[in-house]
Amino acid sequence: MPLLIPGPSSPLLTQRLAEVCGYRVAKVSHKVFPDGESYIRVEDDLKEEAAIVVQSCSPPQDKRVMELLQLIDASWRAGASKVIAVVPYFAYSRQDKVFLPHEALSSKIIAKAIEAVGASFFVTVNVHSELVLGYFDKIKALSVDAFPEIADYLASLNLRDPLVLSPDRKRYPDAQRVAGLINGEAAFLEKKRDLKSGEVTTEEKTLAVKGRDVVIVDDIISTGGTIVNAARIILKGNPRRITAACVHGLYAANALEKLAAAGVEEVVSTDTIESQTSKVTVAKAIAGAIKRLLEG
Amino acid sequence: MPLLIPGPSSPLLTQRLAEVCGYRVAKVSHKVFPDGESYIRVEDDLKEEAAIVVQSCSPPQDKRVMELLQLIDASWRAGASKVIAVVPYFAYSRQDKVFLPHEALSSKIIAKAIEAVGASFFVTVNVHSELVLGYFDKIKALSVDAFPEIADYLASLNLRDPLVLSPDRKRYPDAQRVAGLINGEAAFLEKKRDLKSGEVTTEEKTLAVKGRDVVIVDDIISTGGTIVNAARIILKGNPRRITAACVHGLYAANALEKLAAAGVEEVVSTDTIESQTSKVTVAKAIAGAIKRLLEG
Repeated sequence: MPLLIPGPSSPLLTQRLAEVCGYRVAKVSHKVFPDGESYIRVEDDLKEEAAIVVQSCSPPQDKRVMELLQLIDASWRAGASKVIAVVPYFAYSRQDKVFLPHEALSSKIIAKAIEAVGASFFVTVNVHSELVLGYFDKIKALSVDAFPEIADYLASLNLRDPLVLSPDRKRYPDAQRVAGLINGEAAFLEKKRDLKSGEVTTEEKTLAVKGRDVVIVDDIISTGGTIVNAARIILKGNPRRITAACVHGLYAANALEKLAAAGVEEVVSTDTIESQTSKVTVAKAIAGAIKRLLEG
Repeated sequence: MPLLIPGPSSPLLTQRLAEVCGYRVAKVSHKVFPDGESYIRVEDDLKEEAAIVVQSCSPPQDKRVMELLQLIDASWRAGASKVIAVVPYFAYSRQDKVFLPHEALSSKIIAKAIEAVGASFFVTVNVHSELVLGYFDKIKALSVDAFPEIADYLASLNLRDPLVLSPDRKRYPDAQRVAGLINGEAAFLEKKRDLKSGEVTTEEKTLAVKGRDVVIVDDIISTGGTIVNAARIILKGNPRRITAACVHGLYAANALEKLAAAGVEEVVSTDTIESQTSKVTVAKAIAGAIKRLLEG
């Protein structure tokens, strides 16, 4: 039977996967030396079983990436027959193409490193850009969708005449999907990002939100700037309540405080990044992907 | 003519290499996003010239490694004909073999990642273990020796009847080499490391140091524990003065304060890791290696 290899960033999700899949969690020792280097050792002998490494690459991303590579390497040394790299949040996925000439293509760099240490498969959740999956050219890479689980949670809130808003036109299909699942309406805003400064601006738009519950849906909340812009526009229409829902809650630079100050009453995320807003688990979605990979 | 690509961790050394080699330093933009991801862009067009990336992997090691990979990748995108990765301090080189079963072999992981992004050559300084160079199996990897430069500096101190002490028998050849260069005597202590706790102990030994200048020589000073142990043993013999000299001064966990408290009056290191103790430059040694690589 396959074994789960718990990464330092994903202890809860690994445990939930164990419950869903019925797989055992292997013992892994992990430490950080006084100078900052990470150390990983798989204590169990994996006896030619498949190893499922579970390690999110949330902040501090570079350390999490290094530990991911160490977990894959150590799983092989512990006798795994194959190693599935489950990376619930894949760092650097917003560096998915070369925007300005001579930029490092960072998501591809990490994909190559994961292949270089010999992962057999790669599984992530709601990858920011499909391009990233294409950077794995030696192994099968797939992204599972957590929005149905997020929609289940939103449905439990008994929202009033919900409007599901994408704060960025590019992400509108996600909002449409969630709206369909909770019998709501979908809408989008137009967002622009300055490639040099990184500053995000959102075009003004009149939205019919009076007395309605609005759910702003995005894949990643980083500094929260995009959601704050959207909330400012929504508030002009006198909604009943604003909720923000995302797959990956990074919450850099006091994002949660800023969202609260901008009138967002509740923030929901999944356990791809484990935090106090992780009210939705992606365990079932990942378990399904693992099963399919192992069977086929 | 080749161009130097300055990494965020090695600005001074890159400048010194430019002076020694007569090469131009390319313009590189670097930032860290609010969520912690690094960004690298080579602004110049490298026009089919060789790129010499200079990036030490000192703490925070994992971020420095990621930036190193980004610098190599961006140099290719900027049109380099080949990319020499100069990594003055190579992180994780003490994880050079599997000490306990199923440990990650971290130095090999990084070697593979450097090869995966397409470095053409790898140059480091006083690699902790020759094994590490062997983990590069696709490209030529070499380590240059900074001890002659350190010896030059020590010679300028006009030491009295110097004893050059290796705090670890394994490093004795370095002490012998330095002793030879400054007309001193060499000696060593026996050090033991507990593989599980990482704790270092040093065997007691009577050393004839009365009235003499003692130089403790090691390749890396991390927490300084090894040097502190050695200083404690030396002090019993009433030396005139204790100096510590290393190639790579990491100084984790207030090492410099601990060394001073243990009676070490001066600490010398090179600019493989740039700090206030970097009194010796490795620019000439690295320049020589680069010349040899480029000439064929």
